[in-house]
Amino acid sequence: MGFGKIDTYPVYVEPFHVDYTGRIFMGVLGNHLLNAAGNHSAKRGWGIGDLNGTRHTWVLSRLSIEMTEMPVQYDHINISTWVESVIKLFTNRNFAITRADGTPCGYARSIWAMIDMETRRPCDLLSLYEGDILNYIVSEEENVCPIEGHGRFRFRDAQLVRTIDTYYSDVDINGHINSIKYIEHILNLFPKDAFKNGIRRFEIAYKAESYMGDRLSFYQQAVSEREFDIEVRKNVTEGNAGEVVCQARLRFN
Amino acid sequence: MGFGKIDTYPVYVEPFHVDYTGRIFMGVLGNHLLNAAGNHSAKRGWGIGDLNGTRHTWVLSRLSIEMTEMPVQYDHINISTWVESVIKLFTNRNFAITRADGTPCGYARSIWAMIDMETRRPCDLLSLYEGDILNYIVSEEENVCPIEGHGRFRFRDAQLVRTIDTYYSDVDINGHINSIKYIEHILNLFPKDAFKNGIRRFEIAYKAESYMGDRLSFYQQAVSEREFDIEVRKNVTEGNAGEVVCQARLRFN
Repeated sequence: MGFGKIDTYPVYVEPFHVDYTGRIFMGVLGNHLLNAAGNHSAKRGWGIGDLNGTRHTWVLSRLSIEMTEMPVQYDHINISTWVESVIKLFTNRNFAITRADGTPCGYARSIWAMIDMETRRPCDLLSLYEGDILNYIVSEEENVCPIEGHGRFRFRDAQLVRTIDTYYSDVDINGHINSIKYIEHILNLFPKDAFKNGIRRFEIAYKAESYMGDRLSFYQQAVSEREFDIEVRKNVTEGNAGEVVCQARLRFN
Repeated sequence: MGFGKIDTYPVYVEPFHVDYTGRIFMGVLGNHLLNAAGNHSAKRGWGIGDLNGTRHTWVLSRLSIEMTEMPVQYDHINISTWVESVIKLFTNRNFAITRADGTPCGYARSIWAMIDMETRRPCDLLSLYEGDILNYIVSEEENVCPIEGHGRFRFRDAQLVRTIDTYYSDVDINGHINSIKYIEHILNLFPKDAFKNGIRRFEIAYKAESYMGDRLSFYQQAVSEREFDIEVRKNVTEGNAGEVVCQARLRFN
């Protein structure tokens, strides 16, 4: 679509990027979405590289992916992305995942904040670059993203199910545990059989950064037979509940 | 190079595929090499897909990667691959990793066997498809791969340094722990600082398959100040040394 408001990126589903059923790993799909977001922003002068000049950076706050059908090994798919709205400190970015023939196999929603790299505080997106971001908005009327919005989490009776250490491969260029690795670690909580029909929806809310060496504790509660909430807390010790790093909801088919 | 003997594949170094220093993860680079190998084979009628017809499949036995300089975030690199030789049950495949300007930043060597999927035993590559594979050989005289061959491992005083469980994200479409995940888990044994100048050489020998749920024990010995051998054994219990799954050597810059 050239320099319109919506960009579409081709993605090839590689052999080492699929699970034992042949479906793309949710974390790998998430990575492709984040790349599409990054490229779409960069092309319009809002990429991480441009922002470094003014000491700003994007922070992913929410990501919700809902798939009617997971792409499988050797599939050629397309990921389209656009900005749906900007609400002062946050922007909503949507995604459509389509098969080679153009039919949709899923959608995703995300929320991002722009932070000042010195203060780590969010910025007013409407005043940055003289509100330039408003030029890229594609309203819900123009392009529908027909999946539910991000839900609210209420942890009532979550049980500690695993504690892990974090290592070299978990960390990104900023020294943080990378957004995608949380997804991997969360999926690793479930037995092989849970994935036999694939994942219907995966939702994650990023709350705080964690760093290499942090211990992550995973708390889980069942929402329904096929739906689970997970809360990840860092550096939980006896008598100290630690800090919430992220929260996720997973619905299996 | 069209349908010659050497193929070259472009690779873009994605933001989530680099470590805290900005260099591509060795496991991600390994994945790109395996994809190049798979595509090169498939194009010549020797891909996994073709082989399924005759119930044969490729098994990676050795992989050695040596880098004078690790590609970094946002780099565009090229991976060239060719078959160097075939020795009855094994074939040697080499790789060159070059920068956008064509200068090399590293090379790799690999050894593959072809197995019968029923018996799991290696096949005579020279008789399969009437020796067709010989048509694709690029001798060492024609195209040099100027890195040392695969070394021999001698574990004398390796110490147990970690034991991990394996989960959903570790497993590939064959139900095996995936070749790339071993690399990740091995690198995870080292402290952050070890990687500050990057990895010079990484070598791995795959010995046996392991499966989701297998416990992997990592034994480590120092070869020199910056060089380490790691042996991975599965299902080690008291009084049972388990089975060797793979062995690796790692040299840091």
